[in-house]
Amino acid sequence: MHKYAVTLTPRFYETDAMGHINNATIAAWFEVARVGFLDQLAGKDVALARSWILASVQIDFKGETFFGSDVDIHITEASIGNSSLAVHCEMRQDGRLTVQGKAVVVFIDFDSKQPQRIPDSMREKLASIG
Amino acid sequence: MHKYAVTLTPRFYETDAMGHINNATIAAWFEVARVGFLDQLAGKDVALARSWILASVQIDFKGETFFGSDVDIHITEASIGNSSLAVHCEMRQDGRLTVQGKAVVVFIDFDSKQPQRIPDSMREKLASIG
Amino acid sequence: MHKYAVTLTPRFYETDAMGHINNATIAAWFEVARVGFLDQLAGKDVALARSWILASVQIDFKGETFFGSDVDIHITEASIGNSSLAVHCEMRQDGRLTVQGKAVVVFIDFDSKQPQRIPDSMREKLASIG
Amino acid sequence: MHKYAVTLTPRFYETDAMGHINNATIAAWFEVARVGFLDQLAGKDVALARSWILASVQIDFKGETFFGSDVDIHITEASIGNSSLAVHCEMRQDGRLTVQGKAVVVFIDFDSKQPQRIPDSMREKLASIG
Repeated sequence: MHKYAVTLTPRFYETDAMGHINNATIAAWFEVARVGFLDQLAGKDVALARSWILASVQIDFKGETFFGSDVDIHITEASIGNSSLAVHCEMRQDGRLTVQGKAVVVFIDFDSKQPQRIPDSMREKLASIG
Repeated sequence: MHKYAVTLTPRFYETDAMGHINNATIAAWFEVARVGFLDQLAGKDVALARSWILASVQIDFKGETFFGSDVDIHITEASIGNSSLAVHCEMRQDGRLTVQGKAVVVFIDFDSKQPQRIPDSMREKLASIG
Repeated sequence: MHKYAVTLTPRFYETDAMGHINNATIAAWFEVARVGFLDQLAGKDVALARSWILASVQIDFKGETFFGSDVDIHITEASIGNSSLAVHCEMRQDGRLTVQGKAVVVFIDFDSKQPQRIPDSMREKLASIG
Repeated sequence: MHKYAVTLTPRFYETDAMGHINNATIAAWFEVARVGFLDQLAGKDVALARSWILASVQIDFKGETFFGSDVDIHITEASIGNSSLAVHCEMRQDGRLTVQGKAVVVFIDFDSKQPQRIPDSMREKLASIG
């Protein structure tokens, strides 16, 4: 089961002169899925939704992505620590695996910008969508 | 004489699958020149520099722009009204005119978001760089 | 009646430090709608779909666009000439008109890059979706 | 000693509503440095310069990057294998380390799209800029 899924339609300007979707666009798409997933964890609490900073992102390109066919992005796994959350994604186009990604986000106090424990409400929400 | 000039090196991700720089990138480059020009008018007054909103932008594509060669952007003309300023630009690559643009920006009061008269300090600055 | 419509969900990275969707993103969104509309005119003929170049684009910003709510883009009008087509769009967020755009695209022969008459098949298609 | 360096001026549209440069822009900037470095390895041989595909990219965000001050990007290390090259970069703003990145690119035959041995000419060039 997936924790979150979103389907994106590639846009022509997201291609580059190699004829495929540019790698920086893939990083941007990963953000779309990650923000959607984190907003789902936060529920209606907008302040919670905006309390994450991105610590790292790793993207493995398994195949080219092209204009002309939709891309399915799934959040496949989320490993929770004290203040950090590792979010894994997979992208597929026409059933082909094109991208595997992993991002680590850290929950912070917005005023001090210091890491703080991820709230129980989000832990429970995460467990429930496992 | 030009009122402001900036040279940009096209980036590979700014191309699209047509093999040239994408039109939305051109709009973004125009912003680079416009912000640089408006910051020059504002001098060290950061609040002034951030008191503009974009009302309209018109871009005429006179020739393709390619990866591999620098692009010179000039602000060629700026027509000042009460609260609005029309900023004209030209882009050239290898001496070829590729783009003519015109943007209208409006000076606003940041709290009320209402248009207000462009300050004399900026009018004098603009006159001096004519 | 609209000639073509597409709904886009604003992405966080499409915002800028002013807290709203950046103007260059709006130009990019206009391309999304325009490409979708031109592909509809071309039907299954991919070569026809890729035979347009962008001559100009004009965007009037009628209101800010924000992250957090979908944007409806409609192609409201398309005026056909011999080789050129003027495509008008409107964008709305939560029912508010945020953008009016007009782009002129020119139908070209891909080898010679010279303008040529827009084929009757597309004229008929355009008339039918009026 | 650095193998390649480029200085970029952050652009306003590269910020997001968090008030800093968006993470996907950082991935794009890494491409700018990587392409510049690989072009340097290829010298005047344009075919060599365009024979790389990106296998993976890892970006560690060590600090925020802001609009208003230049960013220095250095290629700090490049580890060559048979057909692959690991390219490490660091980004600094006002002397602060903001980003560490690692990308793996693979040298391919453009027709077959199969990996092939990185040519000696590039190995010698790489050794010379060590």
